[in-house]
Amino acid sequence: MSELGDDTTVVRSAEGWSATMNPRWNVGSAPHGGYLLALGARAMLQAGERADPLTVTAHFVKPPEPGPVTVATEVVRAGRRYTTVAAALRQGAAERVRLLGALGELGGQRGPTRVAAAPPPIPAPEDCVTLGGSSAPEVAGRFDFRFPEDSPWVVRAGAPSHGEPLEVTGWIRLADGSDPSTLALLVFSDAFPPTVLSMRHVGWVPTIELTVHVRAKPAPGWVLGTFRTRFLIDGLMEEDGELWGQDGRLLAHTRQLAVVLER
Amino acid sequence: MSELGDDTTVVRSAEGWSATMNPRWNVGSAPHGGYLLALGARAMLQAGERADPLTVTAHFVKPPEPGPVTVATEVVRAGRRYTTVAAALRQGAAERVRLLGALGELGGQRGPTRVAAAPPPIPAPEDCVTLGGSSAPEVAGRFDFRFPEDSPWVVRAGAPSHGEPLEVTGWIRLADGSDPSTLALLVFSDAFPPTVLSMRHVGWVPTIELTVHVRAKPAPGWVLGTFRTRFLIDGLMEEDGELWGQDGRLLAHTRQLAVVLER
Repeated sequence: MSELGDDTTVVRSAEGWSATMNPRWNVGSAPHGGYLLALGARAMLQAGERADPLTVTAHFVKPPEPGPVTVATEVVRAGRRYTTVAAALRQGAAERVRLLGALGELGGQRGPTRVAAAPPPIPAPEDCVTLGGSSAPEVAGRFDFRFPEDSPWVVRAGAPSHGEPLEVTGWIRLADGSDPSTLALLVFSDAFPPTVLSMRHVGWVPTIELTVHVRAKPAPGWVLGTFRTRFLIDGLMEEDGELWGQDGRLLAHTRQLAVVLER
Repeated sequence: MSELGDDTTVVRSAEGWSATMNPRWNVGSAPHGGYLLALGARAMLQAGERADPLTVTAHFVKPPEPGPVTVATEVVRAGRRYTTVAAALRQGAAERVRLLGALGELGGQRGPTRVAAAPPPIPAPEDCVTLGGSSAPEVAGRFDFRFPEDSPWVVRAGAPSHGEPLEVTGWIRLADGSDPSTLALLVFSDAFPPTVLSMRHVGWVPTIELTVHVRAKPAPGWVLGTFRTRFLIDGLMEEDGELWGQDGRLLAHTRQLAVVLER
């Protein structure tokens, strides 16, 4: 098993599924959004008897606390190619996350392939650097990151000039050495520093909604994440992301809508 | 009122909300996905007592028939900035569409603005051309389209060469002359010809999931839609879109995951 496998274990219960959220996935006092997404998706996969999330949407209703959580699941429709499942993460009567997804088997899809994109050309992980800093949240200990030496996160050059997209690109893997899974891709979708962190006066960036399309099973090794914000409008921003394998295959396509709270 | 206003009218009923789907929105024998999204969102807005969809996700579970439909809504949480609502479109016991959204007031959001993108440079609507063809589905009569004269749809040049994204870009407005609303943006999100239509052997492209982030209220006039597919993998494709106002403001950000069925 792995930290992620252990900490997303769900067992059948009167409310559907029960789990315990480990505080090692915390950002501040609340579990990290990607971890909540993976935990919910794992219950959905078990309820739908499917192997992989194809697309999962999470609405983060209210920050949970670590500890016991229940996941109520509803199989909306079981089709041949995929199964649609809804889910609700609750602590007591308080709903924390609402999810909706289509689940299936990534190896079992059949049809045409036509790819017109490539991963961004950044140095290999061994030619990148780690991020220092003792202010990292607890969850940062679950990941290894490698960033190009000239990225704003490393040189602290400040925000890109107005008119340029806010971007963050780097390598990620699970810190415990376990191989990435499609559940890990859900976690990686919300694991990188927010794109707006290089802007001044940005405090916290709570996610309203996060949708991840999982497009391929990851191979062992590093995963390249690239995230971009082009539209911050009246305090709402999108963060558009891609996760790529070291072999150049697209693994996941992500988008979230988030609120930018100023300090 | 307008065709869209009339045909998305929902009234309170024992099941939550009732409506009648007008067959003039059909593609073949089933109502168009964008119309279903707008109908569901209208019930969600009324249930949540909010003015605008901020982000709405629809999973298309099974194609409906035109005629009576019920929408069961659940207000998951009413917050200050937005309200989270889930909904299910049903005909009898058969579920057709499951939705999840965050609703609020677009004019009432406050916070920083920073935009790093512009609409694609295409000719003005009056310098574009309409698409001919008697094979257009019923729903095509609900829209006016204008496409640049050199777009593949017009010149029928065939698919772009391998390695280029599949794209469709053009102007849209409601054919009845009514001004666009945020609900109309939901319809426009799924109204353009599919990006893969220029590929050979493509039959039908059913949507699994469609998420729309509505970012601004539209002004009267044309709306520019631009949609792109970069990743068609084993018969699953994303379609990534933007809707822009004639004044150069981003109105909506869309992404869907769809199945490409071959003829």
